[in-house]
Amino acid sequence: MSGTKRYWSSRIRDLTPYTPGEQPKDRQFIKLNTNENPYPPSPRVTEAIRAAAGADLRRYPDPDATPLLEALSRAYGVPQDRIFAGNGSDEVLSFAFQAFFDPGSTIVFPDITYSFYPVYANLYQIRCRRIPLGADFTLPVPAFFGGSDGVVIANPNAPTGMAVGPNALRAILEANPRAVVIVDEAYVDFGAESALPLIGDYPNLLVVQTMSKSRALAGLRVGFAFGQPGLIAALNCVKNSINSYTLDRLAIAGGVAALEDRDYFDLRRRQVMETRERAAAALRDLGFEVLPSQANFLFASHPAVPARALFDGLREAGILVRYFSQPRIDRFLRITVGTDEEMDALCRALAALLQAQK
Amino acid sequence: MSGTKRYWSSRIRDLTPYTPGEQPKDRQFIKLNTNENPYPPSPRVTEAIRAAAGADLRRYPDPDATPLLEALSRAYGVPQDRIFAGNGSDEVLSFAFQAFFDPGSTIVFPDITYSFYPVYANLYQIRCRRIPLGADFTLPVPAFFGGSDGVVIANPNAPTGMAVGPNALRAILEANPRAVVIVDEAYVDFGAESALPLIGDYPNLLVVQTMSKSRALAGLRVGFAFGQPGLIAALNCVKNSINSYTLDRLAIAGGVAALEDRDYFDLRRRQVMETRERAAAALRDLGFEVLPSQANFLFASHPAVPARALFDGLREAGILVRYFSQPRIDRFLRITVGTDEEMDALCRALAALLQAQK
Repeated sequence: MSGTKRYWSSRIRDLTPYTPGEQPKDRQFIKLNTNENPYPPSPRVTEAIRAAAGADLRRYPDPDATPLLEALSRAYGVPQDRIFAGNGSDEVLSFAFQAFFDPGSTIVFPDITYSFYPVYANLYQIRCRRIPLGADFTLPVPAFFGGSDGVVIANPNAPTGMAVGPNALRAILEANPRAVVIVDEAYVDFGAESALPLIGDYPNLLVVQTMSKSRALAGLRVGFAFGQPGLIAALNCVKNSINSYTLDRLAIAGGVAALEDRDYFDLRRRQVMETRERAAAALRDLGFEVLPSQANFLFASHPAVPARALFDGLREAGILVRYFSQPRIDRFLRITVGTDEEMDALCRALAALLQAQK
Repeated sequence: MSGTKRYWSSRIRDLTPYTPGEQPKDRQFIKLNTNENPYPPSPRVTEAIRAAAGADLRRYPDPDATPLLEALSRAYGVPQDRIFAGNGSDEVLSFAFQAFFDPGSTIVFPDITYSFYPVYANLYQIRCRRIPLGADFTLPVPAFFGGSDGVVIANPNAPTGMAVGPNALRAILEANPRAVVIVDEAYVDFGAESALPLIGDYPNLLVVQTMSKSRALAGLRVGFAFGQPGLIAALNCVKNSINSYTLDRLAIAGGVAALEDRDYFDLRRRQVMETRERAAAALRDLGFEVLPSQANFLFASHPAVPARALFDGLREAGILVRYFSQPRIDRFLRITVGTDEEMDALCRALAALLQAQK
């Protein structure tokens, strides 16, 4: 083999990596495209990071991120040996795919969900079976009962924002006693019910969360997972075969402070939820179909104007949202919940675009 | 399968992860066990991190760490498409093993070297062939001429501290035109010659470095690699199939500032090298054999007293060094170069231990 891929290993030669949402460098946009929090993180996070940014940076971090595990243990009422922390929930998910799914085995996830799952699976030679969501984008729970070597469910789902309750997850866990079920709760803090209370009952349940959304720390890279000690030990085995220290000293310090400021966390996620409901109503007033979201984004479709045209028009108006050129959802825009002012600007821009189409 | 490993994938069930040097929590030690820099990072690093620790933490980092690539490009005179940055050189190495070595293929490295290499290889189902170093721990260069699918050389080597020059590496690169040769230069800034100028000539050369040692930023997790664009693209393909953002905003900001303070970098590495030579002479005066180190550590053995006893005795005296219970090197202690005062304390403690053995 010659050319660019001359030295590439067989495992990566045919991969298509994940494409994150655009991070514009040139121009100031109203940025509603990557599900970031519109509010800054807790001031205690900033203070903690500034205090940690000193001479101790010459030292390696704690390889187990112990202070962070202790803070997670206090915040969630879970023993430390049931918690794993990593460099964002993407890294945690990547470790989980390696830890729990054999090469050549088959895992299932919805046909419409976080598009990183098939990327992990391809890298680790895991087969994917995609289970179609209902026409209304609800999860067809019985379709997940057995017949696979692993299950991955984003709850709330992305990019729909729709969630299922713990009983649906219980049913899936019980129907798959020999397979690990990963519940990716990146957006759970905006109104859905966490599967965390189920980990005591199900040794095959891994619950993955992140500080990127509800704690406004996408730039700090802190994700975590809950599960029984056997699952957590497997994640540590993978991590310690790759990188002893995935969380730097500043991420550990900032993460601890974020967990300790519970009031700020509750204040901000309530604000986001209120703005979400207000914006959903305004979009419906403009004629949009808006899925019932329990996340910090809305998934909305207009019957008269193609989503692609609205996406382009919004970009020209200085507003970034996300559009997926993909069957079943190419009528939709995924719109991150910003501040009330940002959502008002969005609705004004959309109204103008709809008007121009008439 | 039942028990702790019930849900573990076949790829990790038999792994032995890497064990990093001890990070004591309870007691204050003179810490000469993990090759950390005895001096703090540049004050400009601290300032840059404090400035970055604000509201922007709610935003994802630049997924390509562009400001860091730009600063690396300026500092090393290498175009950006020949540079990759990651979460410490351990992560960069892990990505490189995935990117360049096929499952079932065979790579070679010295029998005595950084003990993370076989760990990566085991995780990614790569076979290892260990090439014995000479009796004096020199690299037997012709033994690396062909017959493998990849080569990994730490230069300077760890834990010996000994380095080879570019001509030896040229010979190995030319003898392995179809295999990627990874030169791990974690310690190169303490007196060895970098292979970086060779990347233009050899499309199969990847040079890996870190900010953990010479830039006193072990706690920030910044590693990087240089190679021709095809190799860098492969690393990005792996990274973007695992985690879009491995470097957080603070690591990017701090890394940029570290590269910009060239004078501080040169001052500190010169201090470490001077202390190393002074401490090596003092250890030789105590009867130790000390290998010729071009790293920020010394590898030393005493003819009369077992290394394990000295290791234990130093620990009791409040000084941590590293001991490897491993054939050929179990007579040695690996001693990180600290400040002059720390090395004086080490020599006093060793003198007392030797005296007590008489």
